[in-house]
Order: sequence, then structure tokens, then C-alpha cells
Amino acid sequence: MHIRDYMQQLGQQARQASRIMAKANTHTKNQALAHIASAIRRDRSLLRQANEQDTTQARAEGLAPALLDRLTLTEAGIAAMAEGLEQIASLPDPIGEITNLKFRPSGIQVGQMRVPLGVIGIIYEARPNVTVDAAGLCVKSGNATILRGGSEAIHCNRLLAKIVQEGLVSVGLPANAVQVVETTDRAAVGEMITLTEYIDVIVPRGGKELIARLTREAKVPMIKHLDGICHVYVDDTADTVKALDVAFNAKCQRYGTCNTMETLLVSRAIARQILPPLAAHYEKEKVELRCDVESLSILDSYPYKKQAEEADWYTEYLAPILAIRIVDGLDGAIEHINTCSSHHTDAIVTENYDNATRFLREVDSASVMVNASTRFADGFEYGLGAEIGISNDKLHARGPVGLEGLTSQKYIVLGKGEIRK
Amino acid sequence: MHIRDYMQQLGQQARQASRIMAKANTHTKNQALAHIASAIRRDRSLLRQANEQDTTQARAEGLAPALLDRLTLTEAGIAAMAEGLEQIASLPDPIGEITNLKFRPSGIQVGQMRVPLGVIGIIYEARPNVTVDAAGLCVKSGNATILRGGSEAIHCNRLLAKIVQEGLVSVGLPANAVQVVETTDRAAVGEMITLTEYIDVIVPRGGKELIARLTREAKVPMIKHLDGICHVYVDDTADTVKALDVAFNAKCQRYGTCNTMETLLVSRAIARQILPPLAAHYEKEKVELRCDVESLSILDSYPYKKQAEEADWYTEYLAPILAIRIVDGLDGAIEHINTCSSHHTDAIVTENYDNATRFLREVDSASVMVNASTRFADGFEYGLGAEIGISNDKLHARGPVGLEGLTSQKYIVLGKGEIRK
Repeated sequence: MHIRDYMQQLGQQARQASRIMAKANTHTKNQALAHIASAIRRDRSLLRQANEQDTTQARAEGLAPALLDRLTLTEAGIAAMAEGLEQIASLPDPIGEITNLKFRPSGIQVGQMRVPLGVIGIIYEARPNVTVDAAGLCVKSGNATILRGGSEAIHCNRLLAKIVQEGLVSVGLPANAVQVVETTDRAAVGEMITLTEYIDVIVPRGGKELIARLTREAKVPMIKHLDGICHVYVDDTADTVKALDVAFNAKCQRYGTCNTMETLLVSRAIARQILPPLAAHYEKEKVELRCDVESLSILDSYPYKKQAEEADWYTEYLAPILAIRIVDGLDGAIEHINTCSSHHTDAIVTENYDNATRFLREVDSASVMVNASTRFADGFEYGLGAEIGISNDKLHARGPVGLEGLTSQKYIVLGKGEIRK
Repeated sequence: MHIRDYMQQLGQQARQASRIMAKANTHTKNQALAHIASAIRRDRSLLRQANEQDTTQARAEGLAPALLDRLTLTEAGIAAMAEGLEQIASLPDPIGEITNLKFRPSGIQVGQMRVPLGVIGIIYEARPNVTVDAAGLCVKSGNATILRGGSEAIHCNRLLAKIVQEGLVSVGLPANAVQVVETTDRAAVGEMITLTEYIDVIVPRGGKELIARLTREAKVPMIKHLDGICHVYVDDTADTVKALDVAFNAKCQRYGTCNTMETLLVSRAIARQILPPLAAHYEKEKVELRCDVESLSILDSYPYKKQAEEADWYTEYLAPILAIRIVDGLDGAIEHINTCSSHHTDAIVTENYDNATRFLREVDSASVMVNASTRFADGFEYGLGAEIGISNDKLHARGPVGLEGLTSQKYIVLGKGEIRK
């Protein structure tokens, strides 16, 4: 079958299944998730075999070690998949929730009901656990989904799709509510992002270049972020212990995540007090510091330093590298962040109430924090239960996107025969 | 100046102004709206002169009477503009609202803060009151806006822009928070819909063809609806009085609005009871009925009838024409609506609790109603205070869009120095 016809068929099947999923009751959806979790545990050796096929092939094709690492499914990884589904089952069902139901002078009662978006497309690389997480979130939120994982994970993803579909069918839900694109043909992605008739939103997960390209070519709306250029700003009145804790954790707790700090801003008034002890911590981790002229002179004796270039203020290192800039207090920090940030997550460390308030209001990012590490920007940490992705856009969902981000609200009107005068 | 450079300049100016508008406090924004309202009243004769220039030219160019009607600014229309601004001023300020602030096990407190979208582009035709309504809503919601009205209203719109900008400046807000595109060059629209760097969302208002074309070519996201193919379904157990009231009002209260009923669905079980008395009402208004075979035989003696063709189920007449179809109860109605509706507004008339509940849940439209006229689907009737437009899309805003639709929610995190373990 031609790839366009194949994707059209998946789309039509998903649209049909989405109608049934939208009506499915909470108990049935939770039962399906429980069945899938059990089946994943039951089939764990089959899953490891399929994953070994993938990793063997990937190794032969010289896949980068980082990707190979994400592709590999361990015994613990399989257990985590199953637990993740049980966690999603334990979350409240967002669908059907009615809010703000109020009487109007005309006599009608107007409110909003939360409903599924319809069909969610997920485009991702390597990690087979995304298949299960995304399927779980979509099932719980009453959506159908089309999953397009990386070709390197195809054996494992096919098996997971089989397990998920069995679980759906066992409780009377349509198998087509979760479909995995069975071809590794790259053209499938191009078809998927233009399937406006059958896909309501796409969540692309992957490198910045991939997502930038998809965004340019897509006709289906996306929930996405390109990168995370996150800042910590240490204000004049920062508490030293909090500043050192937050600035060290935000950079060093994990380097490769999108909520890791990439630029540290320090108010001139406190720079000589904060930077030397902070650098002592970074030195243990051999963090390379790319400093503006002023901070460079303060960190004179630091062994791993360089003078920052303009491009450093716009770079997501995802590595033990940190840009540092001295700013003129709060206004300078907000100006720098609103210019250079990727609007993902930015934090202030301060003891000053007005400055905290202004930072919260004026920094235009998906997550804005006071006295907390940027590493907290995450669906689990925020209490969403799980996340399908993170959005840096302002429309629809912003920040970590959980079940609610896969829903929308329609208006409902309850009357007793009212007519418009 | 080349049109591209001109639009880029408007965009840059809007983006700068939006930063200041986002910080503006409630009192200042309300004061600006009050000043503009006074100035509109003060300058009413100037406004009528400018409008007369527009209408004279439009008449000379042979503008359609309907458009000419919408273009004409009466004394009452000017008063309504000023009142509209005062109403917007009296609405609660959505900006800065913090919701769901909850402690997490890590110690951080996570919530959401409502913030402006940034820069809103409005593309519309004829009606000069849209200039003032849209400016008012954008100012109140802390956004900057670029307004592109129809070339036929350019004199009036230029004067309105001057009045609005004076009002902004008089309270210390930037004039560029509300800019009117001063050229009538159509290329301006093409530039506007691709200005992703400077415009966050576009609200197009106009005919279906215009909006469909803009949607195809736009790179900036849109809040829009193409058309309103709205249904009333009369269920088996409908109360006759409510059914006649709602079905007559939904069609005949106004023909040209997007929330007017275009297709009436009647359950077979009640068709012979409902259709003849309802037709007696329609006959007074000379409504043409396009009937399926079954309803045609029931309405045998109706003078203005035709047999419906397949295309009738997908047509927005905006005229005294109504398609009628007999369906197999609730399931048939939901199937027809989810297939043929434009997902704008659909209503059921029923006394049955389960059927009301199922209709509300299963009909996939922006507004779903029980025992109320579809004509209620409107920002004022829903209590939003005013509307910038209506969205048939599922992402971001759905249904009538008021102040909240011009905002988004960012996450805020309040900590005491917490770090991620």
C-alpha cells in the first residue's frame, strides 16, 4: 500500500475509534490500563527479546551511545512502564468534568464540559517507554492516538502495540484507539503532520532540529518545545545558601534535560559574594564557565573558564557548561531573560517580596520560579501525574502537559425552552 | 516603505508595546478604556464625517447593500461603541489571576498565573465597531494588537485609531499597543498572517472563503470559525411547546448569524406531532423547507418546500431556508450531527434525562445545548462580557472567545530553596 493511503487509513481508523473512546466510562478506561500493565509484566521476556533485536541492529548501524542507551529496555524499565500505567489509572478522569455552570439573566445555565481533543499523533525517537506512556495518557483522556516511534525501536514498539491493543479489546474498547505506525518509511512522518482531517494535534518529541523542521512543514497544530535555555537569576537580596543550592542543582543534577539551567545571571550587588563559593562547587564537577568580562575577573582563579561570546546567551549546552553574566539587578535580569530565554523555565533567588512578585509576573516563560531549582519543571513534580510533553507555546497548553492538555472544554447550555429575544 | 518592511515595523512596535501592556495594572487599563469612551462621544460628529467619506466611496464603488449596512456608523452605533468599552472596563481583570496553587511533596508550591498572549492580530471587514471592541478587549487583557480592517472603512478606522491611541497615551500606556494598518494594500494581510515572530495569534472575522484562504496560508495560529451549520434535534420525548419555541427561534430570530439553525432533525416517533404545527409558524415567515423524503410527505401541503439534496446537510444558508430530516431517535441525530455539523452549536429538545446527558457528552461541538435556542451561543449571552470571535477549533479556546481566550496560563513555582533530588 502506498504510504499516503496507509496513513490515511490509520487516520480514518483513529477518528472512528476516537468517537467510541470519547464515550468510554472511567472504569472501562482504567480496566484497560490495568490489563495492559499486567500484560507488560507477563510478556517481559518477549519485550526484552524484541528490544534486543532493536539494540543489536542499532549497534550494527552505529547508533550514537546516548540514543542506544535510551533505546535499551531493562527489567526495571519494563516494571516502570507497567507502574506508569497504574499511576495513570489512579489519576482522576478529566473527561466529562463540568465547571462554571452558572445561571444567566435569560434563564439558561451556561458552563463548560471537558472533552477529549480527538486524535493525538505522537512522533518520537528511540525510547520505547514513550509508546506506553503516551498510549496510557491518550486512553485515560478518551483520545485515540497514532504513535510514530523511531525506526530503531520498531520491533519493541510493534510488540507493545499488540499488548496495548489486546488490553483495549479485552474491555470492549476499539483496538484502533492506539495504533503504531508499522512502517519505518520516513515519509510516514511527512504524511502524519499534514493529516488535518484525522489528527487534531501532534506532540513531537526529539531534538531541536527535528522539531523545528516538523513545525515548518506541519499543518496539524503541535504541542511542542524546541529547546530549554533556562536561567537562574541571583538577586541582590538572595540568601546565600539558597542561591548556592539552587544554582548548583539547576546545572548539575542532570545535564541533558530541557529544564537544566544554561545561563546564570547574578546581580552586580551580590556577585563577589556568590560567585566564588558557587564556583568551588562547580569546580568539583569540572563545569566549564563561559563568563562575561565582569564575572570573568571575579572568577580569575577558576580553572575551566572562557570568555562568553554573544552566541552563549542563546545556547542550550545540555552539558557541563554554564554561561554566566552579571546584570544590573532585577530589571537587567528580566530584560536578558525575555530576550534570550527559550521561554521554558526561569528562576529567581531572592528574599525580596516585590522582586519575587515582579519576576513572577514579568518573565514571559512557561514556568517561572522563586527560590526553587529549574529542574522541578516536570509533569510529575507539578502533580500532573505524568506528562506527554512540554509546551513552550502560549496557545492551548503551556509548560508540562498532562492529561488536561489532551482535552478541551466545550460550552454546555441547559435550558427549559428559553429563546433569544 | 515596502509593505513587508511596514508590517515588520508594526510587528516590532507591537511586540515592544506588549511588554509594557503585560505589566500595566488594572486601574490604568480601565482608565484608558474610560478615556477612549469619552473621546468617542466627544468626537462623534468627526466620526460620522469620516464614516460618511467611507460610505460615499463605498456606494460609488457599488459595495453590496449588506456590507454597506454594516459599514454605516449611526449615532446609536457610536454610543454603543463607547458603552461597550465601559462594559469591558467593568469586567474583572483576567491578568495576574493565580489558580490551583498547591504544595507538592517536594516542598514547592505549584500553581498557574494568567498572562496575556502578547500580540493579537485582527483581520476583519467593513464594521468599524470591531476596531473599538477588539482594541478594548486587547487593552483589558494586557495585549498589544494590530488591527486590519477592511479598506472600505479606512477613514473611520484611522480616526478611531487616533482616538484610541490618545486614550492610551493619556494614562501613560504606549500608543503602539493598538495599531491600525494604515494601508489598504491587500498584501498587508498576507504579511500579517506569516509574522510569527511578532504576532502570537490572529482572529480573522469575515466570510467563509476569506477565512479558509487565510487558514491555508497562515503561519500564525488562528482563533476562528469558518461557518455555523447548527442543528436542533427534537427528541421522542420533547415537550411540544419547547420544541416549537426553540425550533422557530433558532431559525427565524435572525437569519444571517452563525448560530442560526440550518438543519432541523426530528425523531421519527414525534415527527407527525411536531412538524405540521411547526411548519405553520415557518409559513408565516415564508421559510423554504428542504425536506428529506419522509418529512416531505408529512409536510405535503406546505407551500415553500423542496426535496433536500445531499448538499443541503452541509449548507449554511444564512437565509429563510431550513433543511429538515427525520432520524432514528438520539443515535441517528448524534450520527448526523457529528458528520454534518460545523461543530459550532447544536441543541436537543427533550424531556428525557439520559438522552439530554448523552447529547451533551457525545455531540462534538463548541456549544451543545438542551432545551435552548442555538441563538444563545454568543459571548454576551454566555456572560463573557464581550467576544472577540467564536472558535470552532478544539485547541486553546472553543466557542465564544472573550477576555480569557486572549490569555494563557503559565506555571509558577514558589519555593524556599528546594532542589531536585
